[in-house]
Amino acid sequence: MHITPEARLSQRRFELPNRLPVVGSYRLAKRHRDIVYVAGHVSATLDLTDLIRGKVGADLTLDQAHEAARICALHMLSTLRIEIGSLDRVSSILKVFGMVNVAPGFVQLAHVMDGCTDQLIEVFGEDAGTPARVAVGMAELPLGAAVETEMVVALAD
Amino acid sequence: MHITPEARLSQRRFELPNRLPVVGSYRLAKRHRDIVYVAGHVSATLDLTDLIRGKVGADLTLDQAHEAARICALHMLSTLRIEIGSLDRVSSILKVFGMVNVAPGFVQLAHVMDGCTDQLIEVFGEDAGTPARVAVGMAELPLGAAVETEMVVALAD
Amino acid sequence: MHITPEARLSQRRFELPNRLPVVGSYRLAKRHRDIVYVAGHVSATLDLTDLIRGKVGADLTLDQAHEAARICALHMLSTLRIEIGSLDRVSSILKVFGMVNVAPGFVQLAHVMDGCTDQLIEVFGEDAGTPARVAVGMAELPLGAAVETEMVVALAD
Repeated sequence: MHITPEARLSQRRFELPNRLPVVGSYRLAKRHRDIVYVAGHVSATLDLTDLIRGKVGADLTLDQAHEAARICALHMLSTLRIEIGSLDRVSSILKVFGMVNVAPGFVQLAHVMDGCTDQLIEVFGEDAGTPARVAVGMAELPLGAAVETEMVVALAD
Repeated sequence: MHITPEARLSQRRFELPNRLPVVGSYRLAKRHRDIVYVAGHVSATLDLTDLIRGKVGADLTLDQAHEAARICALHMLSTLRIEIGSLDRVSSILKVFGMVNVAPGFVQLAHVMDGCTDQLIEVFGEDAGTPARVAVGMAELPLGAAVETEMVVALAD
Repeated sequence: MHITPEARLSQRRFELPNRLPVVGSYRLAKRHRDIVYVAGHVSATLDLTDLIRGKVGADLTLDQAHEAARICALHMLSTLRIEIGSLDRVSSILKVFGMVNVAPGFVQLAHVMDGCTDQLIEVFGEDAGTPARVAVGMAELPLGAAVETEMVVALAD
């Protein structure tokens, strides 16, 4: 039997974080027809009191960065639910662009970003939840965040 | 009364810069149905005689970078008008990706990019003009430009 | 007479590389209606035994990086053909995002990325093959790859 994303979250008593604060002249998501563009979401802690900050490979380990990327996915899911009312309306995660704040020489970018996309797959399932992905190492991210992710999402009719 | 983007530009005697030179095998914009993909636009001076160059946080101040990002918005508007004939045909600025050429430790990326998106909002208004946004710090930009921005735009039918 | 992309490849006895290995929870391409999002493709050698690695401007020359970007285009074409069956179904290359793994001070990013987009133009022709493009210099790329590219493609009905 098919389980919807919202049912899956409920069953696991999985709560999404509150909406990220917007600091500037942008929106967390913008929709056009059946496509939602989700803005860059930084690795804020789940209670939104601070950022997970630092250079991955120096200040953060690979595992900590992987967890930061998973938390970025949760913030994007929270934004998406607020934007469209229910995650059950998602048809497909089309693309995820993952940006890692790297110390020189840190190149395990795919593994870090699996933290984000594995979380999306857990919610939407293999087919709908697995995106085309880009993973890159940035010189700096906003306010020193360790990870930032954005995505493009298709909605069901 | 609703004022259109072109009327707003006229009222303020606001002139857009000439078309950016294309140096390579790409176009400044590519359209598909009602979506326009606007290429990366670097921070060239408004008279197109030079680039606003350098590392933000070392060679440029925050304010200078904010202005460079605003100028990127003007170049993108110029491209967009050439591509679609009139800015009044724009329905919504969907996404802006902002890339800042950073000196190590410069993390005020959201503030820099407000220079770009505030300009878009001034032209298209709050609802149509405010995009989902990504702001990141790059290791290098083309020819040492201080800022580069790209966007995805939806047209009215 | 109009020559299709596949006929052009055949005439030149031009063989695309095998499918890039996927190392993580993503797909090489994801399609929605008539749009294909192609994931970040790193500069793997054509026989897929290794990566073209290193910092452009230090470990690689401009010419070597240009060739790495061309090879990224070939990997993206291979992915695209597997995804949609035939490159003749492509209507337009809408956007290419090119990321170069730079040594400090290397700013010839547009020239590097011409390696990618010239290849796309060779296959699809000037009009369909020339995208809106972004070219940037990254701090690090996955596993030290010299170049990574992604694209958005429109299909014919």
